[in-house]
Amino acid sequence: MVLTPNPRVVFAKRPGAGNLPIPGEHIVYDASPTIDLDAVPLNGGFLTKTLMLSPEPFLRERMRDLSVQSYSTHAVVGAPVVGTVLVVVLRSEKEGVNVGDHMSGLSHWEAYTVQPYVEGRADLNVGTYPDWTVDLEAFGLAPVPDPHGAYPWSCYFSVLGGPGLTAFFGFEAYGDAKKGETIYVSSGASGVGSVVIQLAKEKGLRVIASAGSDAKVEYMRSIGADVAFNYKTTPVEAALKEHGPLDIYWDNVGGASIKSAIEHARARARFIMCGSISEYNTPPSECYGVKNTSKIFKKRLQIHGLFVGDHVAALAPRFYTEVPALMAQGKMHAREALTEGLENAPEALMKLLQEGGAEELGKPVVVVAKE
Amino acid sequence: MVLTPNPRVVFAKRPGAGNLPIPGEHIVYDASPTIDLDAVPLNGGFLTKTLMLSPEPFLRERMRDLSVQSYSTHAVVGAPVVGTVLVVVLRSEKEGVNVGDHMSGLSHWEAYTVQPYVEGRADLNVGTYPDWTVDLEAFGLAPVPDPHGAYPWSCYFSVLGGPGLTAFFGFEAYGDAKKGETIYVSSGASGVGSVVIQLAKEKGLRVIASAGSDAKVEYMRSIGADVAFNYKTTPVEAALKEHGPLDIYWDNVGGASIKSAIEHARARARFIMCGSISEYNTPPSECYGVKNTSKIFKKRLQIHGLFVGDHVAALAPRFYTEVPALMAQGKMHAREALTEGLENAPEALMKLLQEGGAEELGKPVVVVAKE
Repeated sequence: MVLTPNPRVVFAKRPGAGNLPIPGEHIVYDASPTIDLDAVPLNGGFLTKTLMLSPEPFLRERMRDLSVQSYSTHAVVGAPVVGTVLVVVLRSEKEGVNVGDHMSGLSHWEAYTVQPYVEGRADLNVGTYPDWTVDLEAFGLAPVPDPHGAYPWSCYFSVLGGPGLTAFFGFEAYGDAKKGETIYVSSGASGVGSVVIQLAKEKGLRVIASAGSDAKVEYMRSIGADVAFNYKTTPVEAALKEHGPLDIYWDNVGGASIKSAIEHARARARFIMCGSISEYNTPPSECYGVKNTSKIFKKRLQIHGLFVGDHVAALAPRFYTEVPALMAQGKMHAREALTEGLENAPEALMKLLQEGGAEELGKPVVVVAKE
Repeated sequence: MVLTPNPRVVFAKRPGAGNLPIPGEHIVYDASPTIDLDAVPLNGGFLTKTLMLSPEPFLRERMRDLSVQSYSTHAVVGAPVVGTVLVVVLRSEKEGVNVGDHMSGLSHWEAYTVQPYVEGRADLNVGTYPDWTVDLEAFGLAPVPDPHGAYPWSCYFSVLGGPGLTAFFGFEAYGDAKKGETIYVSSGASGVGSVVIQLAKEKGLRVIASAGSDAKVEYMRSIGADVAFNYKTTPVEAALKEHGPLDIYWDNVGGASIKSAIEHARARARFIMCGSISEYNTPPSECYGVKNTSKIFKKRLQIHGLFVGDHVAALAPRFYTEVPALMAQGKMHAREALTEGLENAPEALMKLLQEGGAEELGKPVVVVAKE
């Protein structure tokens, strides 16, 4: 029996409303577990080695207090963090899953995992949630093709992964974008935001984008934003007053930005509501109160809550046809910010969640292991 | 020359934020004008006699301060109130408009009018408004067929007029109603609300409806509401918690009701935003702050601002086919609350706009003259 180290990142404690998850306290790197890679029972499943993982905003939402309802099930204290990963298959007893296959989707933040994982799943009590709560973990892993060097594997966390799918689905399902229209993208340097900017330019839109640092402002300009501003130095309200009105608002941040976008929307503007990163750490009573909701009817706004899983069946085939082609033509650029080592994943997540997001440009990706 | 009295209701003074328009101060009945019905020049237009008119919530919005933007142009101080009317043609120089024709649409609140009216129009400065502001007055009058006793002419202000069109268009364009789903209708005893309740039952929905008096609660039950409550004695939040969750929210009142409906919406619920009567008299800074906007994306809500004019071309033909048939089959009931005399129109409007609306059941209609 050969035991191999199987380090993991454990969700140790709920951060509480208003607080960030602190490495070592709420999210803890644990180097002690081991695994027998050759002998661990697979029970009809398969064994995966984690190559990369992706710190993402929804992870904070899953760490919320048990009393708070939301769109995804709660993370389970004591179990490994469950987030987006890229894995390679080491052994398999499952038909259709072969050694050497690459897969992406939701799994444990640990070096090796027997799939489907069960640790933490039993505690989810999925049946007790309301109908608008999604059990993201049930999506599991799906195979991803080898890019054969055309682009790095890390693209499966940015343009070719969740952020790319989200941006594409939102545009196609709800954008109704017409050439020459104006879109405002908040958090435009984020994984989703940076794809939105590029898809918008591809559709001939005029793009206004905001982020929390001057370096990100430059980055947003480099990928096509016509107007880019740092919301820490230029109020959103002032920027939209100068550069609006808006035909489309792509909302990644929520809160006060919704009020400003409503105020500066044109008649029949479309709002694509994709995230609320300004309020993931905020208790409900302290969230921003939007007072101009009567303008939703007065301006005939069309406001669409977006969840990527709702559109896979209808739109994924087009995504996988069109987006890799845009990349091959150099019309779509991916940028990832790589961090080496699973032990640095907690810190990478906390940085992403802090006010203004991670400092590095590009979608944060943690490299766990080589092939 | 025979001069006939041509009394009118004049918009004399803006009520100011937070205030109701007071008869005799802001909206003034003026019995002094006269008209020579036989000799008044028509200049290629036509002369109409006003039979009935309709106090409606949008009239308050048009009386707002000049500095406040909204979905309709401002009412002009010194000119007659412009609202929905039913008229009969007395003389005509216009091709296609004949003596004896009945027409409905926007016109002066006065006994006789030369159409198209010009008084007040020149002051509108329509070109200076943003693109989301509609010049309702430009819609003018359109012919309506003689019901030949199948239903009263006053139906053109309720089920067969603006309220009916609004309810039908909203349902067809945005409702995506499926049998067995639950809808909540605020202001369910109003012109629009009472048609929404009946259309919803026709589609097999379970209907929750609210209004501001016990008599209105009984009325809503009588036209099909499964759950009806008085929001003055039962908080909306408590009612929706008990009787929700909601698949559709039809919003006539805005403000805090939006927060409650978001809170008790199911995944992918549709919101049809039709009015904000709770905030028409409210300064923007005192409007209700909706703090749970992050649930728009978390629940994938689809929120649609509705303006009846946007859907005429696509949906009016179906409306005029289906709704009169529903009336003929007794599946759709109209109820109007008639007030006699143009001199009572200011009071009827103020009553409609007060907290809780008019006391009488049914769509308020002012009878100005017999044929």
